[in-house]
Amino acid sequence: MNPQVKAVEYAVRGPIVLKAGEIELELQRGIKKPFTEVIRANIGDAQAMGQQPITFLRQVMALCTYPNLLDSPSFPEDAKKRARHILQACGGNSLGSYSASQGVNCIREDVAAYITRRDGGVPADPDNIYLTTGASDGISTILKILVSGGGKSRTGVMIPIPQYPLYSAVISELDAIQVNYYLDEENCWALNVNELRRALREAKDHSDPKVLCIINPGNPTGQVQSRKCIEDVIHFAWEEKLFLLADEVYQDNVYSPDCRFHSFKKVLYEMGPEYSSNVELASFHSTSKGYMGECGYRGGYMEVINLHPEIKGQLVKLLSVRLCPPVSGQAAMDIVVNPPVPGEESFEQFSREKESVLGNLAKKAKLTEDMFNQVPGIQCNPLQGAMYAFPRIFIPAKAVEAAQAHKMAPDMFYCMKLLEETGICVVPGSGFGQREGTYHFRMTILPPVEKLKTVLQKVKDFHIKFLEKYA
Amino acid sequence: MNPQVKAVEYAVRGPIVLKAGEIELELQRGIKKPFTEVIRANIGDAQAMGQQPITFLRQVMALCTYPNLLDSPSFPEDAKKRARHILQACGGNSLGSYSASQGVNCIREDVAAYITRRDGGVPADPDNIYLTTGASDGISTILKILVSGGGKSRTGVMIPIPQYPLYSAVISELDAIQVNYYLDEENCWALNVNELRRALREAKDHSDPKVLCIINPGNPTGQVQSRKCIEDVIHFAWEEKLFLLADEVYQDNVYSPDCRFHSFKKVLYEMGPEYSSNVELASFHSTSKGYMGECGYRGGYMEVINLHPEIKGQLVKLLSVRLCPPVSGQAAMDIVVNPPVPGEESFEQFSREKESVLGNLAKKAKLTEDMFNQVPGIQCNPLQGAMYAFPRIFIPAKAVEAAQAHKMAPDMFYCMKLLEETGICVVPGSGFGQREGTYHFRMTILPPVEKLKTVLQKVKDFHIKFLEKYA
Repeated sequence: MNPQVKAVEYAVRGPIVLKAGEIELELQRGIKKPFTEVIRANIGDAQAMGQQPITFLRQVMALCTYPNLLDSPSFPEDAKKRARHILQACGGNSLGSYSASQGVNCIREDVAAYITRRDGGVPADPDNIYLTTGASDGISTILKILVSGGGKSRTGVMIPIPQYPLYSAVISELDAIQVNYYLDEENCWALNVNELRRALREAKDHSDPKVLCIINPGNPTGQVQSRKCIEDVIHFAWEEKLFLLADEVYQDNVYSPDCRFHSFKKVLYEMGPEYSSNVELASFHSTSKGYMGECGYRGGYMEVINLHPEIKGQLVKLLSVRLCPPVSGQAAMDIVVNPPVPGEESFEQFSREKESVLGNLAKKAKLTEDMFNQVPGIQCNPLQGAMYAFPRIFIPAKAVEAAQAHKMAPDMFYCMKLLEETGICVVPGSGFGQREGTYHFRMTILPPVEKLKTVLQKVKDFHIKFLEKYA
Repeated sequence: MNPQVKAVEYAVRGPIVLKAGEIELELQRGIKKPFTEVIRANIGDAQAMGQQPITFLRQVMALCTYPNLLDSPSFPEDAKKRARHILQACGGNSLGSYSASQGVNCIREDVAAYITRRDGGVPADPDNIYLTTGASDGISTILKILVSGGGKSRTGVMIPIPQYPLYSAVISELDAIQVNYYLDEENCWALNVNELRRALREAKDHSDPKVLCIINPGNPTGQVQSRKCIEDVIHFAWEEKLFLLADEVYQDNVYSPDCRFHSFKKVLYEMGPEYSSNVELASFHSTSKGYMGECGYRGGYMEVINLHPEIKGQLVKLLSVRLCPPVSGQAAMDIVVNPPVPGEESFEQFSREKESVLGNLAKKAKLTEDMFNQVPGIQCNPLQGAMYAFPRIFIPAKAVEAAQAHKMAPDMFYCMKLLEETGICVVPGSGFGQREGTYHFRMTILPPVEKLKTVLQKVKDFHIKFLEKYA
């Protein structure tokens, strides 16, 4: 068996989620529990939590799937226009044909146009756009290409701690070196360039650090980086000749009124040609998050900047082995970047649906922060963006001992107890990484408001009982 | 840059296909050529060649995509039943939710039921079914898990020559050792177990051979293995403790009246418990081939037999890092394994469409074989199954010299000339592997009958001219 595969860990679907599945089966078999359902707050899966798909997106997808519907009066004209636009670019005018390995041409053009609009006119080139099978596929593909070497020249990949465990998993799989830089919990999980410098300096002793991964808005930490911070990071990458990998899948998920999303691409260009012609950057987006929450379609794209033409050739070759990303996911991505505009028939309904999802998320972000901070022994930074809370939890010494007796990390022990006693499934902080001696968990804010309130109340009651039990 | 990535080659979308793209752009720009369109006979992409999707499949997919249509009188009840069946098993009843990493439960049950029917009652366990992103994803994932070691203990993976280049590409990527066994061209590309023995014996000097890959029906070679041959292979794998990897994506594509498809799973069970409880087997299927040709959805499954529970755990963990295969592709797979049955409203139309596609493919298989064998210097084995011809072509010594002068493999030189002079894009045999000194190309038989006739006539004219030119 491949030892690198053995080394892989992925907490978001790890042992606690397997346990949740077992408990669900027990409930189905009629086994009595102190709760009637498992609430899967472990993963950012909006529609599984009851979020309704955006009507326009699904209408276009249905038209593309079954083009007979193009004659149906029950579909709006703008949806039909989008569907025809997508289908004319597909082989045999069908979602059932393979696309080019880099993705359908017109969809890459639409993505480039979207980025240009988003970034206030900073140009995007369709040749730099690669459609992917969700963002995860893009991230692991680009890392696969960049990683090389053995011994002291093994490639170092810098990742934030806490991180989204796709990064650590792919780094294990590729036998690269994970280089941790710590986000500043006391400062709303901000990224500090001095910490990047420390991490890089220490990593150079035993690896060849080449890649710097940034997650903004943060997962699991929910912080939104300031423009100043992004400038500092870009300057650092330029200075140290690091390849910048910007995971920006939560770009539509910003809730704090004093925060906004700045793309690395835009800031890079605004810093001038010395940066914009030299810093290598790959940025990722997805259909899974934002307001659409279309995880199941596995749609996504990456934009690459300053990638060497030879590497680009290697990238297309590598992608071609898997033929192409799912064309239905590509179509979904197209609708995300090319939504109804004012004056179009579907614009009003689309805007209403989008604002409703994002407005609710903003409300739930605030609610979650406030409720957690009312609980003794729980501290939660503001959820500026993304769709998770990552509160710090106090775990008493006796509970740490009990966890050790069960050969579990203390926060795993905590989360298992929470699951067994309340049915609420969250992911222990140790699955994302955290400063030694601190404990956290990640919980999504996706349940509907009333349900989320109940969930938060249950966590509160559980936590207080837990503190008492292990006092 | 990762040296293993550099070593990867994938001819089906290699330099000749890039050239085809350039020529298409030139035609669009009005540059005159001796032809008016490029015919992409390089890839098994049925719908791009004009094959119409199966109506029932697309109806169910449209209903799943936009469930409002469940109220529409224009959709048949059996399609609605299938759509409800799929949706009730999806999180939030939506294709937009992530599924379990192994795939939607009820779809895995439907796949298991299909395999049981296909194999005349040999049982299949849904726990052994993994839904995948096309068959390619399953094949590369299982190889990734099985490969390990360095130096003389690097894992050897036995593959047929000619092979489908996904295998060689993944072997390069994983830094494993490719162990070639040659199919017998003089004997309709049959697999001979003595050749397996030779290949294994020689491989043991410099690697640790652990996996035996079989492609049946053959790609690019189109042979259909006899039951006897499959028994011999299974006995060999049992004897040598090899993991059997059976690529059976063309299981519905058998044309020769004296051939039929036998699954490795069925033969394994019929050989008795000594085999069925010991030989490790993974078998692959896909939505992309057969009569449905739904390549773009990237649907597929694998069934594993006798996989060690620890490896199964590792497999699920590895799959979970990418979250799940596209749920729309999973739904497409469900419809393939759970089509309309006699008595259902859509049965007649479904059967008509299915038989029309398969009947046409059978006609085109015979037509292609016959026409190629009329050309001096071309020899073509019967196309017993799959969807390709892999004729052997005679290349005169002067053409071989000319190719060398261009630093090209002789068959690449031939195929480039064919493309430039006729617009027909086929893949040189060197991309699949062939015996030293022999030359071939792979061409799909997917163009509609009349177009295929024209293509074959053009290849004939080109070949005769080529022989004359380099005589």
